[in-house]
Amino acid sequence: MQVDIGNALASEADPGIGRSDLDDLDERVADAHDRIARGMADDDFGYASLNLPERTDAAEIERAVDGFDPEAVLTVGIGGSALGAITITEALAGDSPVDHYALDNVDPAHVTRLLDDLPLAETVVHVVSRSGTTAETLANFLVVREAMDAAGVDWSERTVVTTGEAGPLRELAETEGLPALDVPEGVPGRFSALSTVGLVPAAMMGVDLEGLLAGGRAGADALADSLYDCPAYAYGAVAYALDERGASVNAMMPYVEGLESFAEWFAQLWAESLGKDGGGQTPARALGATDQHSQLQLYRAGPRDKLVTVVRPAERPDCAIPETDVADLEYLGGQDLGTLLDAEFEATEASLAAAERPSVRIEIDAMDAESVGRLLYDMEVACVVAGELYGVETFDQPAVEWGKNAARGLLGGGDFEEAEAVAEKTELVVE
Amino acid sequence: MQVDIGNALASEADPGIGRSDLDDLDERVADAHDRIARGMADDDFGYASLNLPERTDAAEIERAVDGFDPEAVLTVGIGGSALGAITITEALAGDSPVDHYALDNVDPAHVTRLLDDLPLAETVVHVVSRSGTTAETLANFLVVREAMDAAGVDWSERTVVTTGEAGPLRELAETEGLPALDVPEGVPGRFSALSTVGLVPAAMMGVDLEGLLAGGRAGADALADSLYDCPAYAYGAVAYALDERGASVNAMMPYVEGLESFAEWFAQLWAESLGKDGGGQTPARALGATDQHSQLQLYRAGPRDKLVTVVRPAERPDCAIPETDVADLEYLGGQDLGTLLDAEFEATEASLAAAERPSVRIEIDAMDAESVGRLLYDMEVACVVAGELYGVETFDQPAVEWGKNAARGLLGGGDFEEAEAVAEKTELVVE
Repeated sequence: MQVDIGNALASEADPGIGRSDLDDLDERVADAHDRIARGMADDDFGYASLNLPERTDAAEIERAVDGFDPEAVLTVGIGGSALGAITITEALAGDSPVDHYALDNVDPAHVTRLLDDLPLAETVVHVVSRSGTTAETLANFLVVREAMDAAGVDWSERTVVTTGEAGPLRELAETEGLPALDVPEGVPGRFSALSTVGLVPAAMMGVDLEGLLAGGRAGADALADSLYDCPAYAYGAVAYALDERGASVNAMMPYVEGLESFAEWFAQLWAESLGKDGGGQTPARALGATDQHSQLQLYRAGPRDKLVTVVRPAERPDCAIPETDVADLEYLGGQDLGTLLDAEFEATEASLAAAERPSVRIEIDAMDAESVGRLLYDMEVACVVAGELYGVETFDQPAVEWGKNAARGLLGGGDFEEAEAVAEKTELVVE
Repeated sequence: MQVDIGNALASEADPGIGRSDLDDLDERVADAHDRIARGMADDDFGYASLNLPERTDAAEIERAVDGFDPEAVLTVGIGGSALGAITITEALAGDSPVDHYALDNVDPAHVTRLLDDLPLAETVVHVVSRSGTTAETLANFLVVREAMDAAGVDWSERTVVTTGEAGPLRELAETEGLPALDVPEGVPGRFSALSTVGLVPAAMMGVDLEGLLAGGRAGADALADSLYDCPAYAYGAVAYALDERGASVNAMMPYVEGLESFAEWFAQLWAESLGKDGGGQTPARALGATDQHSQLQLYRAGPRDKLVTVVRPAERPDCAIPETDVADLEYLGGQDLGTLLDAEFEATEASLAAAERPSVRIEIDAMDAESVGRLLYDMEVACVVAGELYGVETFDQPAVEWGKNAARGLLGGGDFEEAEAVAEKTELVVE
């Protein structure tokens, strides 16, 4: 993986970072690297995530799914319990005969339709919740079980569980004799893509788990005490520095459809890890070239509050555009779609630079397991180093608890003062 | 449609708008309403969009697709030529036997896979480009035609064109005798959902076009000279006022899966219309309840730079959660998924309010044609009134031209100085 921060320099963009400021920042990166390396060595909470490529046992995951030969895998999870699996399978599905679906929301219309459409007798369910009590996940799992029952399908023969040491899902797995995998210790959900949490559907689809983990290990091997020697640190440090200089929004814009969900995964990683203490850069999800016809006007001519991160693979498959004799289209004929997409990529970078708007280019080798594993790992590293520079608790997410208590209280799941606040809402309704 | 701005008042949130400031703003809204009403009466460029519900001829669209009985409709278009159709069909597909797909990007892997998977002999193509020269759209259309040829399918029997008065697509339609619809005059792409541009796939799927247009007309009838009397003005004016007070990000967060693409459509509308002259609020796309496990940490505890817009239908279909005797889950059993989702919706609002973060609630009656038509229309009105308040040219998008020229130049489509800038890129590569 390589990161090009040339268009984020103060000589090119406003906001931008000057060369000498970058050197100063590099000293702080060296300190942060020490803390990260120590945290990894001690397997400290959160930092342990960066040991996953070394620790995750691909063979154990393969064994857990051995014997299943499904048409579809259904992940039942939410947030970090679903986004890693969605991202990996979307990026690497290729021509797998197995389809991956996720129930990561509790919309009754959507859940009903998906369960009506799925071939339930040929579907394996992967239910993921560390606590085993996540409301959305467990509600959906109860609904899925009943749908399988109603269809005459034995759900207990078609369910794999990934959960913590204790809790309702663990008990269920033991009672029913379900294949059960452990959520790794010390790893927040949003950092768990390269573990049991993110890899089970990929395993069933025939994705190269060893390749993904090898990519992660290459990222770990590339950690160094200078941002000039480590692309992940370069990205995290520059994103932080630009936020400090006014780029409060980070638009993550891959130029490849297979990374559309990656932008969502990144958005969770960035928002939940860094959005603290009144600070944190807001991730915006975009997709090139499509969003050139949607967001680029704003990125180029709106407020100077954005860093645009463009991502692409160096290699793409072929898909030739046929020759044409239509006058205005002759220049397209005989080109390849990938050439067109790359031209748009470079044009967007240059368009931003011409308006002195900062961008960073991330390039991976190809849309293969090793490159995608490296990308995910390096973005986690980038997030961790940014957290060190901001000085926040990167690995917690305290602000989501309030709403969980309120929702539980509203549903009669206990006495929570948060639920009372809901009834006191101030209204000013226009209709 | 109703809009509740209670949680955006200064008494509840920071940033927020005070009651007297709101009254002052209302005087500016009255002036803006005069300009909008005049623009509509004169069919001025852009304002003409707000006359679409009155002008669009649903019967003409129904006739153009009459005789087709496809399994799938494939929209070939990009930006405003695709997002309206995607939004409408996703929201209202219901149990239609016809599937809608869109080629709105030029990713070779994605295009190849989609064309391999589609039943081409049972697919109708709807190709949309006002100029008939949009690079991505025409490249994709050339590829689709060839794939149909290769599959022994006569593309000219299965293609509907929506385009402007002249250009390559218009000529093609005339040469080949294809059904051809007109892109309406004076309507930018992002405002064209309720026209030929957005309604053709919906028509083939059996969506109630008259209902959609009736919803739009209800929005037009609700236009009034005060934000207190017009929910669309209330939304647009409050979003503007909060941006002026520091809420530079507007997180659009529907609590219904069927409006996931609506958030993208809104993001284009907002970004491309208002992102000008160094200003404009940045739209962020979110989805409830899923993004509570991703973005809420940032929204509640990050910078005070966000307005969160939550959207829901007042009615949802039933999907009961089965009873369970698992101790920690008993409170969920016997509830409905929709009840859970609504509890999460209200909990998120309250959670933001408890942290004095502004939110606005938009509620539509149901996920039906009339309510969705009203929602789209009212958001367009909100955008137009916000543009009046910002004092920008709401209906143009000059900042996207530079990149188009650069890309065209790179592909050998003519001499463009923008293409030369690409080669001059400043590099600082870390690998």
